[in-house]
Amino acid sequence: MTLTTMETAVERVRAAYARIAEVDRPEVWITLVPESEALEAAALVDAAVAAGADLPLAGATLAVKDNIDVAGLPTTAACPSFASGPAAASAPAVQRLVDAGAVVLGKTNLDQFATGLVGTRSPYGAVRHATLPDRVSGGSSSGSAVAVALGIADIGLGTDTAGSGRVPAAFGGLVGLKTTVGLVPTTGVVPACRSYDVVTTFTRGLDLGVLATRLMARDGARSWPVDVRLGLRAAPVVAVPRVADLAPLSPGWRAAFASAVAAVEATGASVRVVDVSPMLDAARLLYDGAILAERYEAVGTFLAAEPSDADPTVASIILGGRAITAADYVADRARLDTARVAALDALDGCDLLLLPTTTEHPTIADVQADPIGINRRLGTYTNFVNLLDMAAVAVPAGEADGGPFGVTILSRAFDDQLSVDLAARLLDRHRDTAAGDEPVLVDGGVDVLVVGAHLRGQPLNRELDALGGRFVASVRTSDAYRLVALDTVPRKPGLVRVGPGAGAPIAGEVWRLSSGALGRFLAALPSPMSLGRAELSDGTWVVGFGCTAEAGAAGTDITATGGWVEALRRGL
Amino acid sequence: MTLTTMETAVERVRAAYARIAEVDRPEVWITLVPESEALEAAALVDAAVAAGADLPLAGATLAVKDNIDVAGLPTTAACPSFASGPAAASAPAVQRLVDAGAVVLGKTNLDQFATGLVGTRSPYGAVRHATLPDRVSGGSSSGSAVAVALGIADIGLGTDTAGSGRVPAAFGGLVGLKTTVGLVPTTGVVPACRSYDVVTTFTRGLDLGVLATRLMARDGARSWPVDVRLGLRAAPVVAVPRVADLAPLSPGWRAAFASAVAAVEATGASVRVVDVSPMLDAARLLYDGAILAERYEAVGTFLAAEPSDADPTVASIILGGRAITAADYVADRARLDTARVAALDALDGCDLLLLPTTTEHPTIADVQADPIGINRRLGTYTNFVNLLDMAAVAVPAGEADGGPFGVTILSRAFDDQLSVDLAARLLDRHRDTAAGDEPVLVDGGVDVLVVGAHLRGQPLNRELDALGGRFVASVRTSDAYRLVALDTVPRKPGLVRVGPGAGAPIAGEVWRLSSGALGRFLAALPSPMSLGRAELSDGTWVVGFGCTAEAGAAGTDITATGGWVEALRRGL
Repeated sequence: MTLTTMETAVERVRAAYARIAEVDRPEVWITLVPESEALEAAALVDAAVAAGADLPLAGATLAVKDNIDVAGLPTTAACPSFASGPAAASAPAVQRLVDAGAVVLGKTNLDQFATGLVGTRSPYGAVRHATLPDRVSGGSSSGSAVAVALGIADIGLGTDTAGSGRVPAAFGGLVGLKTTVGLVPTTGVVPACRSYDVVTTFTRGLDLGVLATRLMARDGARSWPVDVRLGLRAAPVVAVPRVADLAPLSPGWRAAFASAVAAVEATGASVRVVDVSPMLDAARLLYDGAILAERYEAVGTFLAAEPSDADPTVASIILGGRAITAADYVADRARLDTARVAALDALDGCDLLLLPTTTEHPTIADVQADPIGINRRLGTYTNFVNLLDMAAVAVPAGEADGGPFGVTILSRAFDDQLSVDLAARLLDRHRDTAAGDEPVLVDGGVDVLVVGAHLRGQPLNRELDALGGRFVASVRTSDAYRLVALDTVPRKPGLVRVGPGAGAPIAGEVWRLSSGALGRFLAALPSPMSLGRAELSDGTWVVGFGCTAEAGAAGTDITATGGWVEALRRGL
Repeated sequence: MTLTTMETAVERVRAAYARIAEVDRPEVWITLVPESEALEAAALVDAAVAAGADLPLAGATLAVKDNIDVAGLPTTAACPSFASGPAAASAPAVQRLVDAGAVVLGKTNLDQFATGLVGTRSPYGAVRHATLPDRVSGGSSSGSAVAVALGIADIGLGTDTAGSGRVPAAFGGLVGLKTTVGLVPTTGVVPACRSYDVVTTFTRGLDLGVLATRLMARDGARSWPVDVRLGLRAAPVVAVPRVADLAPLSPGWRAAFASAVAAVEATGASVRVVDVSPMLDAARLLYDGAILAERYEAVGTFLAAEPSDADPTVASIILGGRAITAADYVADRARLDTARVAALDALDGCDLLLLPTTTEHPTIADVQADPIGINRRLGTYTNFVNLLDMAAVAVPAGEADGGPFGVTILSRAFDDQLSVDLAARLLDRHRDTAAGDEPVLVDGGVDVLVVGAHLRGQPLNRELDALGGRFVASVRTSDAYRLVALDTVPRKPGLVRVGPGAGAPIAGEVWRLSSGALGRFLAALPSPMSLGRAELSDGTWVVGFGCTAEAGAAGTDITATGGWVEALRRGL
């Protein structure tokens, strides 16, 4: 996937700065890269592309939350006196996007020290909503989200501990990807709670967010397990909350959520009502419990010196972590472990969980009148997620009460791809500026050719579904194969290699499985089937189905049909 | 594997109580089950076996450290006033052994609240060494280790946070298995540091410890990954410390360690000297850092009330965790994360790490004179292990300075089986009372038949080695197969199924791979080889090698040789 084939990086950057001037939202930025410097970077990208470099993000404009290091720029975390000169190096998450051709426009405003979900807690000013300027933008990644929502940047980098990568997505009509904790390195990020922080993306479409996240998600503290599911089953089970769990929502928001549930069902999913209140209750441990001490550990010593540019709300929250004992912290971590197991139990049999992203869209005046209470409500459906080791994709879901409405698709840790897949089914993905490739978040896997009962619509396709297999392409083999009908239950064909030109191209499908899933698939494979190498019509070789010579010789040749589905259609 | 076919459970239990009377070591036990009750339990085991029950531990006698719950017995953690009546249920770790036929003899003495490596910190008395009664037994799992060393119990259950399952093994000439944190459930255990506690076994031989541990290691907080290595390669690389890292050892102990290194090399391993001092330094964080607060979290409130039966050394250590702030704890956890990554880097290219288990064997009088200093030294090579997420098997390694000497084989998390395999190669395993099955710790895996270049001694066997494959058995196929020599590099045979009686039994080997490793193996398999089902001479089916019909038809029939190795020998 490339970002666009229509514009050069220089053109995109020039347009971004024109848009910055046009929208007149100075509070979005803490440090703006001078246009001339950004254009120089863009020109280098264009030159590299012209020289043949493969830069998947060539010319993508990037807004970086100002708690993430960008080489040469200060990192204030929205507290000017916190910055100690320009960062020596970019955070790996940023560097990987730059290496892929993205151009940094600047560092964006945030709720100070990433503490808040509102976007108003900053000496650089409250970040106004992109289209409803009396409303909040959501935080803490306020500036990055608004930069994308206003059409300035293509990718906004945020961080998310309690919902800071999701709530601003909901208010901005954006896609927000918050992967499993630890997949994207947090090196070079000012910690909020170091155990729970995630670097996130805001994008207008899903594909670009997935691409950027895939680039960032390497060499983190955790990696994708070898048995990860690479695709969401065709008819997944999606958990949804009880009506009682939606009590904080207005009637308009409840109706919008009901529509989102209906849209999920329309994708072929079935819906199961689950009591999520124990999960929501875990949120209490984030700000009312000992986990708060992680915020004090990160920046408490700095704030204890009472810098004049500290946001009073933020400082009072973080300094509240000062006196918490380690014993209380350890006890709360044990409570979270218990809650995590309970959440897994509650979601047993479900692939995903759908929730409203937040509860309401307050005005800036509302928040200023009640800075703690509203912030807390906004985190109702987000605060627990990182604590309980879940991943999330926030997606726009229409409008409600005259403003944007969004839902979040939650998964177990490492099932991020499943959330992405449901998001893709839900969204009109043509809104993305990018080409329409499948949104693949998880690199790797093994491609396997199937030609018979495992094809889509055939009786054993459910095995690939259950193994988290991902459909890649409809293909044909090279002309080195013959297809025979075997004497099996269910009926299966056997692909028999007879040598180049001695057979005919046979129709099949390539599916991708993790190596762990492939091993389990092989372990359960019945005689006379086998898996070896198979040659496709384009000359590539993949793992492919075969059968024993004995069975192949005993079968009925159906090569002339060109494939199993056609053979079945003809009643062979 | 069964414990013995020679004695009934009743006979074993009767012998255990006779031995208890004979040795006159009352300090070993905190609560001894009345002999009549143990005999009743043994009679039930014998009856179950007579009725055909498959009880792999039938009649194994079990001593349980008194910080682990056994239904109906109090759990004192060596502080009498801590027990609040008999435990309602046994810890899962205990219950699984009992369900497998073990009979509990009683609850054993320990360094109070599992805080110590000496075995002297208990109001129930210092536990004297089994054969050198002026020396310490080692702790904190002192009673369980001595009960096994004295020949009373077959299995002693300990717990290990800082080395409590390893140091007493070294002093007792025992095998001590300390698995990866989280594999064995710690439910029903009085925590020492809840993030780092492991339930461990002491046994006189390796096999029984492995069997008991395998039974316990299910449904813990973590499970074996799908890509776990199931066997140690034939010629592993074992890291050993620099001379400087052995400074605390006497000349006699250094010589004994050098002998152990030589013995490791004699198993076919190569040895690589590694600077382990950064790992050893991490130990400082356990007692001098904020992790100590975990001990306060566990029992600090109880000790703060100054019970008269608290051990003064233990109480002063644990109460030292009272004032530690959560912020300091979070910072130390971050330091441990960094140290863990550094340890993995230091061990890059090595399969395992060999260390002395401890530094010296002090007298009880020595320890009473310097209760903190000696204890700290004893933990030099054990304290860091759980903190850095490593697994360990402590094994006896002869004698030094007139007492027992032991070494520990350390592995990365989840590589426990590799430590077990090296331990098996090091030990004379016939010392075990059990039958001589291979010591398999990790359940599961997929059996794969190889018949050619992957056989032991053949050029591709290294692929199975590198994938952590485990040799299971030399076998023959059923008589449904023919073997043909293929035109491949390296030379390989193809196994071709021709139907029952139409071929001949072909010699091969069954190897076991994890499903993840099997998937990776298949993904790399070149044409014309395939993997499907193959029938063994005993009628069982396993995953087995085949080849395309095309290649099979073009090959030279070598069925008459009975197998590839014989065919090669004949120069075919």
